[in-house]
Amino acid sequence: MDLLNHITYPDDLRKLKVEQLPLLCKELRNDIVKELSVNPGHLASSLGVVELTVALHYVFNTPEDRIVWDVGHQAYGHKILTGRREKFCTNRKLGGIKPFPSPEESPYDTFACGHASNSISAALGMAVAAKKTGNTNRHVVAVIGDGALSGGLAFEGLNNVSSSPNDMLIILNDNNMSIDQSVGGMKQYLLNLSTNETYNALRFKISSKLHQWGLLPEDRRKGLIRLSNAMKSAISHQQNIFDGMNIRYFGPFDGHNVGELVRILKQMKDMKGPKLLHLHTQKGHGYAPAEQDVTTWHAPGKFDPATGERLVDQSPDKPQRYQDVFGHTLLELAEQNPKIVGVTPAMPTGCSMNIMMQAMPDRTFDVGIAEGHAVTFSGGMAKDGLIPFCNIYSAFAQRAFDNIIHDVALLKLHVVFCFDRAGLVGEDGPTHHGAFDLAALRPIPHLTIASPMDEHELRRLMYTAQLPDKGPFVIRYPRGGGVLHNWRCPLEEIAVGTGRKLKDGHHTAVLSIGPIGNHVTKAIEDLDVAHYDMRFLKPIDENILAEVAEHFDRIVTVEDGVKDGGLGSAVVEWMADHHYHPEVIRRGLPSDHFVEHGTVAQLDHLVGLDAEGIRKAIIS
Amino acid sequence: MDLLNHITYPDDLRKLKVEQLPLLCKELRNDIVKELSVNPGHLASSLGVVELTVALHYVFNTPEDRIVWDVGHQAYGHKILTGRREKFCTNRKLGGIKPFPSPEESPYDTFACGHASNSISAALGMAVAAKKTGNTNRHVVAVIGDGALSGGLAFEGLNNVSSSPNDMLIILNDNNMSIDQSVGGMKQYLLNLSTNETYNALRFKISSKLHQWGLLPEDRRKGLIRLSNAMKSAISHQQNIFDGMNIRYFGPFDGHNVGELVRILKQMKDMKGPKLLHLHTQKGHGYAPAEQDVTTWHAPGKFDPATGERLVDQSPDKPQRYQDVFGHTLLELAEQNPKIVGVTPAMPTGCSMNIMMQAMPDRTFDVGIAEGHAVTFSGGMAKDGLIPFCNIYSAFAQRAFDNIIHDVALLKLHVVFCFDRAGLVGEDGPTHHGAFDLAALRPIPHLTIASPMDEHELRRLMYTAQLPDKGPFVIRYPRGGGVLHNWRCPLEEIAVGTGRKLKDGHHTAVLSIGPIGNHVTKAIEDLDVAHYDMRFLKPIDENILAEVAEHFDRIVTVEDGVKDGGLGSAVVEWMADHHYHPEVIRRGLPSDHFVEHGTVAQLDHLVGLDAEGIRKAIIS
Repeated sequence: MDLLNHITYPDDLRKLKVEQLPLLCKELRNDIVKELSVNPGHLASSLGVVELTVALHYVFNTPEDRIVWDVGHQAYGHKILTGRREKFCTNRKLGGIKPFPSPEESPYDTFACGHASNSISAALGMAVAAKKTGNTNRHVVAVIGDGALSGGLAFEGLNNVSSSPNDMLIILNDNNMSIDQSVGGMKQYLLNLSTNETYNALRFKISSKLHQWGLLPEDRRKGLIRLSNAMKSAISHQQNIFDGMNIRYFGPFDGHNVGELVRILKQMKDMKGPKLLHLHTQKGHGYAPAEQDVTTWHAPGKFDPATGERLVDQSPDKPQRYQDVFGHTLLELAEQNPKIVGVTPAMPTGCSMNIMMQAMPDRTFDVGIAEGHAVTFSGGMAKDGLIPFCNIYSAFAQRAFDNIIHDVALLKLHVVFCFDRAGLVGEDGPTHHGAFDLAALRPIPHLTIASPMDEHELRRLMYTAQLPDKGPFVIRYPRGGGVLHNWRCPLEEIAVGTGRKLKDGHHTAVLSIGPIGNHVTKAIEDLDVAHYDMRFLKPIDENILAEVAEHFDRIVTVEDGVKDGGLGSAVVEWMADHHYHPEVIRRGLPSDHFVEHGTVAQLDHLVGLDAEGIRKAIIS
Repeated sequence: MDLLNHITYPDDLRKLKVEQLPLLCKELRNDIVKELSVNPGHLASSLGVVELTVALHYVFNTPEDRIVWDVGHQAYGHKILTGRREKFCTNRKLGGIKPFPSPEESPYDTFACGHASNSISAALGMAVAAKKTGNTNRHVVAVIGDGALSGGLAFEGLNNVSSSPNDMLIILNDNNMSIDQSVGGMKQYLLNLSTNETYNALRFKISSKLHQWGLLPEDRRKGLIRLSNAMKSAISHQQNIFDGMNIRYFGPFDGHNVGELVRILKQMKDMKGPKLLHLHTQKGHGYAPAEQDVTTWHAPGKFDPATGERLVDQSPDKPQRYQDVFGHTLLELAEQNPKIVGVTPAMPTGCSMNIMMQAMPDRTFDVGIAEGHAVTFSGGMAKDGLIPFCNIYSAFAQRAFDNIIHDVALLKLHVVFCFDRAGLVGEDGPTHHGAFDLAALRPIPHLTIASPMDEHELRRLMYTAQLPDKGPFVIRYPRGGGVLHNWRCPLEEIAVGTGRKLKDGHHTAVLSIGPIGNHVTKAIEDLDVAHYDMRFLKPIDENILAEVAEHFDRIVTVEDGVKDGGLGSAVVEWMADHHYHPEVIRRGLPSDHFVEHGTVAQLDHLVGLDAEGIRKAIIS
């Protein structure tokens, strides 16, 4: 680590000679591997952009120049080079450095990047702002992956890039992967582009020459355009979509040749107008185990850096993850009901739909990072007789809010929404917590909204949701391990809109929804307090509400979603509407700030949703 | 109307000879113009697709074959030809036929189409469902405009079209317009395509020939691909994005030559695999006044069909529309504060940002139908020092729900969201009502959420929102006429989070937010009831809440958003949290069904939000 040890900020990096950069990349890569082997995080993406990260900070004057990463998985090298190497061992830990770049943490972090596909739009905003505020020397660079490019927001950004005067640089980091393999027509399109290397190389060479000759900007611009047009006539080639949208395209180039990258970036840096640089990279590059199985090594957990052996802590007694229960149950249901199909926006492995995908490839659809399409496409299939199970991570489903309303709920279509990673997700932090689903979905007509307290309930809800004429049906459940040692159980219907009493008691009744109910069970095991698992937020079980209103003085509501608008609100509304006046204490996630990152247990404790916090709320 | 009079359903249409279709188109066009002259609606879009509508129902076996319209503005001809000619005089009226196609109304209406850009995704779902459910003879056609193509959802759809086996046909209805002019790189791209007519025509001719020769499907497919590749080598041309995404491209053709359209559609109908037909049409085609000013004639109100004179009912005393107050005030503020910029997703005329656009073209951005980008782009500008006023219709802002959370609220960026057409919008019906904004946005941390009761309050809120360090600030206000005769007033700050007492009273206090407060004023003018205009949903005025909790037995909350989750919920939550137990009666839009179409006055009456309904709620 001879070079890396001397680098705290990019200023230090810029003192190196270009010839030293390959060694620095090697050191940086080793550092990332070493750190992540003991402190788990996102490995493969960050390894794939080591050279690009070094080259960007070497060529551009960060933080005055703006680098906008699209999805912060890849930003570990960036963090290490921008003053956070020492603290990197606290990455993703409570109170430690944040899982994704955050402007709150560092001026080198320019925007939020927990949700894919937003970099072009945000960077365009910065490029326009630079012009309007007189920062005419500022360069703005967006780094977007080919996976993120499948998101509609990225296309909306591209479509607007040429509309206003700006000199932004878009770097397309093409590794043919999201977390799983990239999908879709655009992937094919990018592949086609890459077959045109001779033409592209020639074109870049000429552009660079013109730049070296120091033609005046206006002349150079015009000259380039003329030249480009001339070449189009001279050479039989494919004009590409980027050029067609008035974004000058250069590439594809090897994204792992740091010397070349520096040269190319220097040449492109001061070109006027919007331009796109297409790089080929390899996820997990430079670390053999990761190169060979990038999906597993996206976030591998702890491992032995020397051997690549993953240290999986899976004792045979440990409950299955909710995801796996979902995956196995979906296949089981699909085997019985030929109408069932599966839809996932780029998360087949993460949500375990890969189980059905392997068994029934023609009945599962990975639509790429495209949550809106996932929902509307499901709506179309439901309209003509299928029953789609559309699985989206709760936080990403925010992107399909309108599609849920307009393309499913309005038409009462029978789509089963399985919102995975609902509630607190832990180390991925505020951009990934599934905090808003209950509150945001409750006002929408025609939706059934349920959350299971354990794996058996998840299975029963999934079974119930696919029965005839159930209409749009939301099931939201958390990330990670369940609570039961044997998740298999018969598939039985749960009457829609019914909760269940789990425990008798006096004076105080707790109403919970979802898996947080298990904390309630623990909190009250020795208290004379009743507990009801509501199961359904909508329709809410009015029999239970009437029962607790009649028989208890105090009602405590507990949910793992944001407090204002969810279960607690539904209960106080119902009490007001029916002229009951019990004391109601609401517990959930705060609605005045975003919950940070840490382990789920730590965060539950912080927000008062662990057994201790819930017990306190009940006793106070 | 010799031909049209004999057509009730497309079956009747299909009995005509192709040579009769131009006359039918003429009759249909006249019928639309005549009807709309007395019963206002969306004129120009529907006139632009008369020939296409006739050709589609002539060639395809609707309703068994599926035609999915993208945005129902254009579907009047479709309605008239599918059993609704007699009822067409009730179009957009309370209890009459719906403003946009609706599967509830007719089997010929295949999906919801109030929000742009969803047709490809929905149609792909139907095409896949047809294969899976054994309806292998069913054809599925999506009709999308070039404006709608700027929406990210359309791109997500396109990106997935080639991923699964289907034979869908996408018709790109290219008129270079949304409601205003189309914008963006894609527009330029489509223009470039159109310069390649020789090649395209040749290509289509050969494809058709192969079809006529009756090659077997598999052979035909392969043959076409080989041929296409050969042609690519032989002819210097631009491969286009659609072909590159494995969607076969044909066009552009004249969309007003109905005979040609029938011929083309017949030839393409049974081609295997996904394909796109690019048509050039003219919005307002065939009616001279509309052709000359398509933006005005998008929805012109009543007019004299003979002269094209619009019968605008604008008495000098009539209050200005909120939109115009917004537009003039925005310019006024922008003149004082150089940081202010304006952003609109394809609605500069509708939201009156065109006022600032004309005066300051370089400080306003029409980003096309791209609500997500509008918000994230605003976030990027705010991050680097500008103050964007981002104006989106409330119902369309649902599309930017995640962008508001992830790209603005999380970073506490100073974006002023002006959500236009909040609450009930009237004749445009359920897809356009701004029902969900208050409830869905309230749980999001860091947002300020306000709604003005009149034009002066709108101006004061806009002034307040652009003062330093205000963070993300939502102002939502309704469609159409205000309530004041002189909207001009000094621009003064309103303390964030403060409401105001409008009237004293005893026992009962009404808390309202937004313009619906004017109905409250009327409802209680002779009652001994207090009235507070809360102005802010968040932060809510806790002083007022404490005051009414202490001094009144009954609280009535009134809002024009969906009832569950909004102001009423905030009030019952606060009362519960602070151990008050007043009676609280909540009035707002229902959360168990979507409110239909009709005049705003009619709908207010239906849902009990007119003065009479509010009075009843108070007295009961």
